Amino acid sequence: MPSFRHLKSVLRLNELAEDLIDLSEEGTVTPKRLDAMVAEAAGLKLFYGMERVTESTLSALFDLAEETHAIQKMIAMQEGEIVNAIEGCASERRPALHTAMRDFFDQRTKTPVAAESTELAYRELEKLRAFLTEIEKKGQYTDIIQIGIGGSELGPKAIYVALEAYHKPHRRVHFLSNVDPDDAAHIFSQVDLEKTLVVVVSKSGTTLETLTNEEFAKEKFKLAGLEPKNHFVAVTGKGSPMDDPEHYLASFYIWDYIGGRYSVTSMVGGVSLAFAFGMDRFLEFLRGANAMDKVALKSDIKSNLPLLSALLGIWNRNFLGLPTVAIIPYSQALARFPAHLQQLDMESNGKRIDKRAEAVDFDTGPIIWGEPGTNGQHSFYQSIHQGTTRVPVEFIGFIESQYRDDLSYEGTTCQQKLLSNLFAQSIALAVGQESDNPNQFFPGNRPNRLLLGKRLDPYTMGAILSYYEHKVAFQGFIWNINSFDQEGVQLGKKLALKMIDQFRSQNEGNGLDPRAFPLGAAYLKHAL
Amino acid sequence: MPSFRHLKSVLRLNELAEDLIDLSEEGTVTPKRLDAMVAEAAGLKLFYGMERVTESTLSALFDLAEETHAIQKMIAMQEGEIVNAIEGCASERRPALHTAMRDFFDQRTKTPVAAESTELAYRELEKLRAFLTEIEKKGQYTDIIQIGIGGSELGPKAIYVALEAYHKPHRRVHFLSNVDPDDAAHIFSQVDLEKTLVVVVSKSGTTLETLTNEEFAKEKFKLAGLEPKNHFVAVTGKGSPMDDPEHYLASFYIWDYIGGRYSVTSMVGGVSLAFAFGMDRFLEFLRGANAMDKVALKSDIKSNLPLLSALLGIWNRNFLGLPTVAIIPYSQALARFPAHLQQLDMESNGKRIDKRAEAVDFDTGPIIWGEPGTNGQHSFYQSIHQGTTRVPVEFIGFIESQYRDDLSYEGTTCQQKLLSNLFAQSIALAVGQESDNPNQFFPGNRPNRLLLGKRLDPYTMGAILSYYEHKVAFQGFIWNINSFDQEGVQLGKKLALKMIDQFRSQNEGNGLDPRAFPLGAAYLKHAL
Repeated sequence: MPSFRHLKSVLRLNELAEDLIDLSEEGTVTPKRLDAMVAEAAGLKLFYGMERVTESTLSALFDLAEETHAIQKMIAMQEGEIVNAIEGCASERRPALHTAMRDFFDQRTKTPVAAESTELAYRELEKLRAFLTEIEKKGQYTDIIQIGIGGSELGPKAIYVALEAYHKPHRRVHFLSNVDPDDAAHIFSQVDLEKTLVVVVSKSGTTLETLTNEEFAKEKFKLAGLEPKNHFVAVTGKGSPMDDPEHYLASFYIWDYIGGRYSVTSMVGGVSLAFAFGMDRFLEFLRGANAMDKVALKSDIKSNLPLLSALLGIWNRNFLGLPTVAIIPYSQALARFPAHLQQLDMESNGKRIDKRAEAVDFDTGPIIWGEPGTNGQHSFYQSIHQGTTRVPVEFIGFIESQYRDDLSYEGTTCQQKLLSNLFAQSIALAVGQESDNPNQFFPGNRPNRLLLGKRLDPYTMGAILSYYEHKVAFQGFIWNINSFDQEGVQLGKKLALKMIDQFRSQNEGNGLDPRAFPLGAAYLKHAL
Repeated sequence: MPSFRHLKSVLRLNELAEDLIDLSEEGTVTPKRLDAMVAEAAGLKLFYGMERVTESTLSALFDLAEETHAIQKMIAMQEGEIVNAIEGCASERRPALHTAMRDFFDQRTKTPVAAESTELAYRELEKLRAFLTEIEKKGQYTDIIQIGIGGSELGPKAIYVALEAYHKPHRRVHFLSNVDPDDAAHIFSQVDLEKTLVVVVSKSGTTLETLTNEEFAKEKFKLAGLEPKNHFVAVTGKGSPMDDPEHYLASFYIWDYIGGRYSVTSMVGGVSLAFAFGMDRFLEFLRGANAMDKVALKSDIKSNLPLLSALLGIWNRNFLGLPTVAIIPYSQALARFPAHLQQLDMESNGKRIDKRAEAVDFDTGPIIWGEPGTNGQHSFYQSIHQGTTRVPVEFIGFIESQYRDDLSYEGTTCQQKLLSNLFAQSIALAVGQESDNPNQFFPGNRPNRLLLGKRLDPYTMGAILSYYEHKVAFQGFIWNINSFDQEGVQLGKKLALKMIDQFRSQNEGNGLDPRAFPLGAAYLKHAL
């Protein structure tokens, strides 16, 4: 297959990008267009009438999906083929089977590899159910401190915060990730250790931050006269240094075919989330994710929400040249969701080589950022309306609130005001506003799309999570990059260890060793 | 004065940008360079040896500051001249006197306008001291709910979170900003209303979200049989609809020359922060901000940290063409600080016209984003090391922890590990790494700088806040744009009100009115 820039559909898209529609032109964005450009699946509607696309653009984008075999690659991924690999250089060579972690419902994937992974995942789920029933009986634990970083924190925390309205009473989870000692000190000042479980999450059992924080936590328990073993739970790979019944109350397994950023629906998210919400709601969450997994297999792209969204993203990134994407949920509960998507997307697709180990000559994954609306409106919206760097926006919204505790004020509820702002911003960005005052002129023509759900419940949260996982994977398939490795984090780790050696040498009274790491020692001088 | 692109220094900088240094080349970044490129003031060190600048670049950047009278404009701003204005079209025509809110220490600004503002600010501070003493005596209040949005939330919350280690025991502040009813419901589920003060912050007294949330809060108090008047405090403009002793226990004033995003050191931040930390620590915070205000007036650019940082930012933005800036504090306490800077920078400088009301033909303020390190390392660092969009990074770090509750593990403390990671990343981004494996090749040459403090205490926090306020203002002065208005938020507000009318009409049984707002009605149909 030719590389991305030489695909036939890409050449066609380049042509189309020469003659773009202008959303701000009178008569371009109409109610009819808005009604025509909606896709729906798994309880979610995707409105894309505010993107800078025409039927010709869509048709060329669909050709791009076909030419790159995007759907076949999605099927292969879900069936357990090796998708995490680079030809021609050392690479992880693994499947990416996060979809197997929730394939317990209809239309299960039948290949032996996928079925076995699902079977293993289900076993852990049963272990978890038994463990939580035991906990419940004892009634001892009110709090979990989950120690983990990256995917072991961002995804689980985003979902935990998103679904606080569904928590069981008196159940709290705290996430300890940063090696910053103030993070740990702050969390430990808030819990009663006797009632606290510590869930340590590390696939390899060797993550620096996680091991350090685990030691920190153990010390706290010992100081309080408590035996850590009665409070510590491991989520780790079978056979890792952490897979040790001597030191943990229980162990739950994850596997090397589950990447950190794709691990929310595995035991990485499972233990804490099921503790907080209860098993039934956790299963609802998995059911929603699974429903969207099946949507991602659909050959009709107009109802394949993740693929459609991936293609629109590629249009904005590679053909309109937009360097960032803002993800703006009009839902305070999704406050931490953009941070999860930042990892999911940027760690997956922030790559410089393709799967044939050749440097790419086109842009891969964009910079992902965002904060909830309406708050953003009083913050960075000035820039997205009138700034010089155009920002495509992905809005997320819900028709109903979670708590249903609302107030009618001046004839409308808060939820209605929230939705009004959401719709208004989508329209304002696209159509803009003429004005005689140049400071009140809004150029408009700023692309955006909207994912709308009925209510942010566990099922819907699962569907949204999976929608983004597959959007990212589809973009990787189309760009022909490996969305499942992260070699770009290694150099920093390596130099950090050299730096720690400098500190250790200093602590031991041997002073710095500038010859071993000249730049490191030069910085370090200033911190002594 | 010629416009930005035609400045002599800009022409020179364009030439210099044709022949850039490559930080990844052997021998470019040396300990000597690192040691030479450090500026220091107000207890902070700025390391800029990892930026893509030479002595020639710096000299041309200093010429740019001179040619645009950057320091004179900073003096004028602090002296109370009208800096919030656009020539040739209607504009706010006001000074921007946030520095007067803390000019209570040495070398006060002596112009009548500035001195009078300082005098007024001091009066509010005295009122606040008396109010808090009264509160303290009664011992009744443990919690504040601060209702406000944009600058009335982001800055105060960022500082509140940053200095939690310095809180008085049993004092909590909750920030209610979003019109999302779930945000309010969640906060009210956590407080004992009898012990709660509600601080409502709105300069105009007319912000939709704030008024709605105030009504929501009042209902809660009434339902609990409590008289809102005994619990509600107003922070507002004198004479605004909220300046009404009939309805508030106390009122504190702000003025139209204090922009929301520059208001943390006024009563907007003052009431809640002084409640949480005590008056003395709040004054220390002001003292730190004031110290950096004076640094911003220095004509020696190499020790004028905010100006130096502004110039480096302009180099990256306008000459290297980098669209975003990542702000990455290696301090969990600064978790919300990037969100504040996102508003501060993007609302101030995300502009399309200059101060002569002409459309700019160069890039203004970049996209600002960021999360704390080391967490980011396990998230988006893949992309900043190996992605195709280069991201200049502004690191922030501290030599000591806040709580001083630390653990030595394998020969180094957590704080030392945290700093090791920080220094290592700065070096890794700049120098990169050669490798035979193309997936382990790091191109490096990615510019970054580091602001290093001794410890994140109230004084240092104040200095860092002011450093960024002035960095942003300096960039605005140099680009000749108005960093103090925000006309770009108006269109969304206007359309939201039209949308609310649609909802109201629907609620009153009159159905939608597509003729009044065709696109609005088209969206709204899907939410009914």
